[in-house]
Amino acid sequence: MLSKAQNKYIRSLSLQKYRKEHNVFIAEGDKIAREWLDSDARIQHIAVTEEWAGDNRALINRHPEAALHIVDDDQLKSISTLQTPHHVLLVVHANRPGDEMPANEWCIVLDDIQDPGNMGTIIRIADWFGVKHVICSPGCVEIYNPKVVQSAMGGHLRVNIRTAPLDDFLQQANMPVYAASLHGQNIYEVSKPTYGVLVIGNESKGISEAILDRAQHKITIPRLGGAESLNAAVSAGIICALLMGR
Amino acid sequence: MLSKAQNKYIRSLSLQKYRKEHNVFIAEGDKIAREWLDSDARIQHIAVTEEWAGDNRALINRHPEAALHIVDDDQLKSISTLQTPHHVLLVVHANRPGDEMPANEWCIVLDDIQDPGNMGTIIRIADWFGVKHVICSPGCVEIYNPKVVQSAMGGHLRVNIRTAPLDDFLQQANMPVYAASLHGQNIYEVSKPTYGVLVIGNESKGISEAILDRAQHKITIPRLGGAESLNAAVSAGIICALLMGR
Repeated sequence: MLSKAQNKYIRSLSLQKYRKEHNVFIAEGDKIAREWLDSDARIQHIAVTEEWAGDNRALINRHPEAALHIVDDDQLKSISTLQTPHHVLLVVHANRPGDEMPANEWCIVLDDIQDPGNMGTIIRIADWFGVKHVICSPGCVEIYNPKVVQSAMGGHLRVNIRTAPLDDFLQQANMPVYAASLHGQNIYEVSKPTYGVLVIGNESKGISEAILDRAQHKITIPRLGGAESLNAAVSAGIICALLMGR
Repeated sequence: MLSKAQNKYIRSLSLQKYRKEHNVFIAEGDKIAREWLDSDARIQHIAVTEEWAGDNRALINRHPEAALHIVDDDQLKSISTLQTPHHVLLVVHANRPGDEMPANEWCIVLDDIQDPGNMGTIIRIADWFGVKHVICSPGCVEIYNPKVVQSAMGGHLRVNIRTAPLDDFLQQANMPVYAASLHGQNIYEVSKPTYGVLVIGNESKGISEAILDRAQHKITIPRLGGAESLNAAVSAGIICALLMGR
């Protein structure tokens, strides 16, 4: 059961302000919840339908620190950030991101990515290609936005994601910078580097001038058809596959 | 101005049933609307804010067949399928898709893609890589779902998209079939074919057995990190880049 106060608290977490204040975030749905329960993350609340709790008893038992609430569909709907809630919602403590610098390995830098689906998908791509660091400009959508968590599919657990002024980060990282651009070198003609920083720009404005100036390599996926552009996450996936894949 | 009846009619088009009945669909937002107005599509209604109409007079004048409605933000919101409407909404006549078969060229086949964002993004990818045919299984989300139209970014104008039983299509097409799978040949070791059918499967179930049986090539993007899978549209983008890009 959820008390009125708990219900109100969890509902408030759909707003970034309250997530920040309490340093928690929401992870929802069958697959995502199992990823988080199967990890060492500290869970604060587990709200589940009776059926899901029955099917996932062992996972739930891994988290004695969490308050467990058996809820019905209506209660779940009242706290969910999804249009169609899926059996389970977790409130998870946000970790302070590590601040170790990537060294001679790939990392991905996001310059003002606005769409939470894009950010989550890029984190999932990083997770697939073994990229351990994603650095987000302060103008990006919040790392713990529910839709980011949703589309990252557990990527937050394996990828170190943090917010930093990009200029400072690039200076410190001191690695070759590859900027995804519509007017750069044909990516098929770029020699496959073993490490570097891949910068993905804002969905409509691209990469800011200051960051472009720092990029030794502006790279482009050549267009063979009529589309004006590619989606930011798809571009990130293609570039990772071409530069890092094997 | 929109009459009450027109308002009701346009609102009804958020449901597939009424889109099918009237053979129209909705295209919304600045960029998408400009793509459609700049085309030879037959437009039925143009609902725009005064400002947008002023800025895009020439585009609007290309469509004397359309009923033009100057609306305020509240009216636009009442007919919009978006959470935050963007200045303009079009009701567009759906074309009967062409039924010519792809011949010695790439085409993309979607096996029960459910997420409209994924379908739209894959159409945009096809459009970028010059793939002229996308064939959707009857179990896919509707081709003219507003979110598909939104994320395809005008791809419907340049890509021939149609629904067909995949088995029949593959038999007729008679081209080598490449199936995206989690357990196939390393895509980096596949020789770059000049044409074929690329099959992308359902977001959770993948490609159906019957279609997999027809695939001469099961191909996999090797995983280098911890993610369980890649998003369907991202996989499609990566495979297109690796097989068709240059």
